[in-house]
Amino acid sequence: MSSERLIYLPLGGAGEVGMNCYVYGYGPEHKERLIVVDLGVTFPDMDSTPGVDLILPDVSWLVERRDRIDGVFITHAHEDHVGAVGHLWERLKAPIYTRAFTANIARRKMEEHGADTDALHTVSPWPETVETGPFKVGFVPISHSIPESSGLVIDTPAGRIVHTGDFKIDTNPVVGEAFDRELWSSFGTVKALVCDSTNVFSRDAGRSESTLKPAITELIAEQEGMVVATTFASNIARLQTLADAGIAAGRSVCLLGRAMGKMVQAGTETGILTDFPSTISAEEATQIPRQNVMLLVTGSQGERRAASAQLANGKYRGITMKAGDTFLFSSKTIPGNERGVIKIMNQFSELGVDVIDDYSGAYHVSGHANRPDLEEMHQLVKPQVVIPMHGEHRHLREHTKLCTAKGMSAVVAVNGTMIDLTGNAPKVGGYVETGRTYLDGSVKVGMLDGIVRDRVKMALNGHVIVTVIIDEDGEPLGEPWCEVKGIAEVGTSNAPLVDVLEQDLGQLIMRADDRTVADDDKLEEQLKRQARRTCQQEIGKKVEVTCVISRLS
Amino acid sequence: MSSERLIYLPLGGAGEVGMNCYVYGYGPEHKERLIVVDLGVTFPDMDSTPGVDLILPDVSWLVERRDRIDGVFITHAHEDHVGAVGHLWERLKAPIYTRAFTANIARRKMEEHGADTDALHTVSPWPETVETGPFKVGFVPISHSIPESSGLVIDTPAGRIVHTGDFKIDTNPVVGEAFDRELWSSFGTVKALVCDSTNVFSRDAGRSESTLKPAITELIAEQEGMVVATTFASNIARLQTLADAGIAAGRSVCLLGRAMGKMVQAGTETGILTDFPSTISAEEATQIPRQNVMLLVTGSQGERRAASAQLANGKYRGITMKAGDTFLFSSKTIPGNERGVIKIMNQFSELGVDVIDDYSGAYHVSGHANRPDLEEMHQLVKPQVVIPMHGEHRHLREHTKLCTAKGMSAVVAVNGTMIDLTGNAPKVGGYVETGRTYLDGSVKVGMLDGIVRDRVKMALNGHVIVTVIIDEDGEPLGEPWCEVKGIAEVGTSNAPLVDVLEQDLGQLIMRADDRTVADDDKLEEQLKRQARRTCQQEIGKKVEVTCVISRLS
Repeated sequence: MSSERLIYLPLGGAGEVGMNCYVYGYGPEHKERLIVVDLGVTFPDMDSTPGVDLILPDVSWLVERRDRIDGVFITHAHEDHVGAVGHLWERLKAPIYTRAFTANIARRKMEEHGADTDALHTVSPWPETVETGPFKVGFVPISHSIPESSGLVIDTPAGRIVHTGDFKIDTNPVVGEAFDRELWSSFGTVKALVCDSTNVFSRDAGRSESTLKPAITELIAEQEGMVVATTFASNIARLQTLADAGIAAGRSVCLLGRAMGKMVQAGTETGILTDFPSTISAEEATQIPRQNVMLLVTGSQGERRAASAQLANGKYRGITMKAGDTFLFSSKTIPGNERGVIKIMNQFSELGVDVIDDYSGAYHVSGHANRPDLEEMHQLVKPQVVIPMHGEHRHLREHTKLCTAKGMSAVVAVNGTMIDLTGNAPKVGGYVETGRTYLDGSVKVGMLDGIVRDRVKMALNGHVIVTVIIDEDGEPLGEPWCEVKGIAEVGTSNAPLVDVLEQDLGQLIMRADDRTVADDDKLEEQLKRQARRTCQQEIGKKVEVTCVISRLS
Repeated sequence: MSSERLIYLPLGGAGEVGMNCYVYGYGPEHKERLIVVDLGVTFPDMDSTPGVDLILPDVSWLVERRDRIDGVFITHAHEDHVGAVGHLWERLKAPIYTRAFTANIARRKMEEHGADTDALHTVSPWPETVETGPFKVGFVPISHSIPESSGLVIDTPAGRIVHTGDFKIDTNPVVGEAFDRELWSSFGTVKALVCDSTNVFSRDAGRSESTLKPAITELIAEQEGMVVATTFASNIARLQTLADAGIAAGRSVCLLGRAMGKMVQAGTETGILTDFPSTISAEEATQIPRQNVMLLVTGSQGERRAASAQLANGKYRGITMKAGDTFLFSSKTIPGNERGVIKIMNQFSELGVDVIDDYSGAYHVSGHANRPDLEEMHQLVKPQVVIPMHGEHRHLREHTKLCTAKGMSAVVAVNGTMIDLTGNAPKVGGYVETGRTYLDGSVKVGMLDGIVRDRVKMALNGHVIVTVIIDEDGEPLGEPWCEVKGIAEVGTSNAPLVDVLEQDLGQLIMRADDRTVADDDKLEEQLKRQARRTCQQEIGKKVEVTCVISRLS
């Protein structure tokens, strides 16, 4: 019996939507050669990660095994799949393989971080493959909401795995490669299908990107003022549809927001966009009648600094919106982003701008396979087991239930769960510590470092600073001094809170025995406890306290 | 020409969903007698109001005119209409009028705050009226998602106003009064219809509460494990439907969460609930087979401390959920609450509990009038003007557009906009400063006090505390001392951040001239600026800085 094994290990993306990072391994146990599929990011929110700029997968497990990594394979250029390449390459230093469009985007990211772009290899699609270590990996074109998305066919001595990447079944995707049913049913014996789960709760079959064209064209033709549309900049097919509709309505098209220009440029450079209309600059847009202008802008998710939010605030690059103009969300609000999107909608409403969202479904289609499409994928590939990925726990579980209801084998494996695929049935091969790394300003901090948790606590509770000076003789010099930040100035006793705090803490020090006053830790603990107690009484809050004890010597 | 005028002034609820507080006035300009309709609250979120417990309307304008208030009229017992009664009564001290069920809830709130419940008057519905000052006010039964909801008919010498309160058109609401089309078309000449706008974007006619019964009954009959359902506790009709379905499936019903018990008790005490099944305690629920248990729990919006969140966390009052159990959201997630609800769904998924939400629309109907129902209301009342309320700006604007498209007069009036209704056409009668008061622990702070803004800043940026001691001779005593909270410990220079800070600040003080060192403000400003600059270089963040300068004397 061979001691070689074939493993699957998600480090991100399984148990969440975002931050995709999957590992496959083959070889002797604990000495497997490894490949990584995708290095994505996820985005912070005020609830749990205030002030954080970006969230990366914790790749410590991979870094410790860096000499065993035979390559990183990027399925497509969405941020949750390629976004961490620049941030993490320095720690992994493995060759990166991807197709031309994705490579174009990845290269920019690597250059920004001074990473060695020689490590980036542009590969041709299936049937060509990359041979590296015990793996042979092919990029199989698949339809999604960004060009050159690929599933991966991963061959190993222990069998073949098909990793779908993000996908939908779209045989007429406007830009890029159509879904090819014949191709996707040609993979023969497949040990495991590792499969997108995002839309498992969407009961109806997905719709093609091309179905949007008539409604969008008609909508834009009807408008009389300026038209502004937002969608993900990476959805180049949608940009094409929107831009074509603008041109058809006699409008000049202007791209606003950094990502818009970058994506259209990448599409043009890689030969994917061949007849995108010529665009005008923001300055030019201000100089022609507004009924002749169509803006394509970033910020479909209400991002605070994106073009849409800035237009809603009043002005962006000299352009203002006003009554009679139209703003189209050719997008869906990702759960959790509602507050930001609704804020923009109301700001536009105040300006008299008509906002059109995807209420009717006429102006947006999803990039992910719905439930019936997932079933079709299962039937096309006919794997021995389905491993749902790219979903929260509820998506993975529902996807598994969908499979087992049809008599297929399926297993839920969340981040950190290693699945051993060697034998006839998958089994758990171990558990690995996983986590998140926060990009916080220019530094990286760990999810468990407590730094962001301290910020959340200050946001909830406010912050009291207590300063005490102890003189050369070990006697307190004057009263303790208190400052508060984020805390009401006057509490129930109707006196200034800092006065009450200083009085209570002064009494505490006066009564404290010499041993306590001589011991920083003890004194600090007592001061903190009293400050909390006073604040609880005065303002009913459990405040955060920082204590600074200075000893004169 | 009379100098009397009739005014409408929203202080809350117009330009937001929540915190309803509307003022009507009649009399000589600036001496109008006033009535207040509703005193509601709204709820905080981490994005803008971290750590805040509750948000109340700023009633300063009313408090300054307290002697002119002839009464407060509460339309129904939802928190966004009655929630501030306990908190604000002491400042207004006006008589409160409402119907029995709402009075039952309001009384509890007033008692909690030690308010004088003699001020609370229970009134009978239309055609009875309350005469107070120049006003005659009748409570007209209207269907909504809580019993005894009422619209108000407000008669003044300048004409009649109809204030819908929250409503839907439901002729079979399971519990309480059906919508009476004849009654609602009987009000004769109506000067203004002040009308709910919540669901103006919902294109289909609303559905009756009673339509849910078959699907809910069938769903619960099908389940094999424990069934737990959540909805707003105040939706007593829904509780009745759910409880009846539980009983029909051979289950005992248990209410979990403080609000559940309170609402069912209020319904029973006021004679609204006559055949609600007898319930069992949490302890009893743990002692019978789980397939015989049906829990009705609070927390449909994912509230962190509610019963649903605690069950999702593992255990609540001795009850645990497990594989084979079912959790039903008989509710819709209010925009902005998605993160909390999704978190619970995933926690249940991890426990193996099947979660059923309102994806299909079979297990929940809205309590608000949809677009066609609003049009019907306009036609029934036939007012001279429609004033949309109870909505964000986009709702008010859309509601106005809906009216004008049908040839009706309508006007957008957001919080603080006083509308003069005296003449034939409404006109703006002035603007009033409005705002929000935060209940923060046990104290109230103003939205503009900067206290919560400071907390948001600390959450985003972290907090640096700089302590400097200046001796009797005006010379710095030792180095400045720095503490950080919510900030990375090591920056780009790879030395501990506090060391770098202390070094930079020490140099600053050393180089500072005597005048700067002698001047607290100047010294503080320079220290703060340097601390920010150092942090920007080291960790790329614009930190918050608090500076404590102690002078020995």
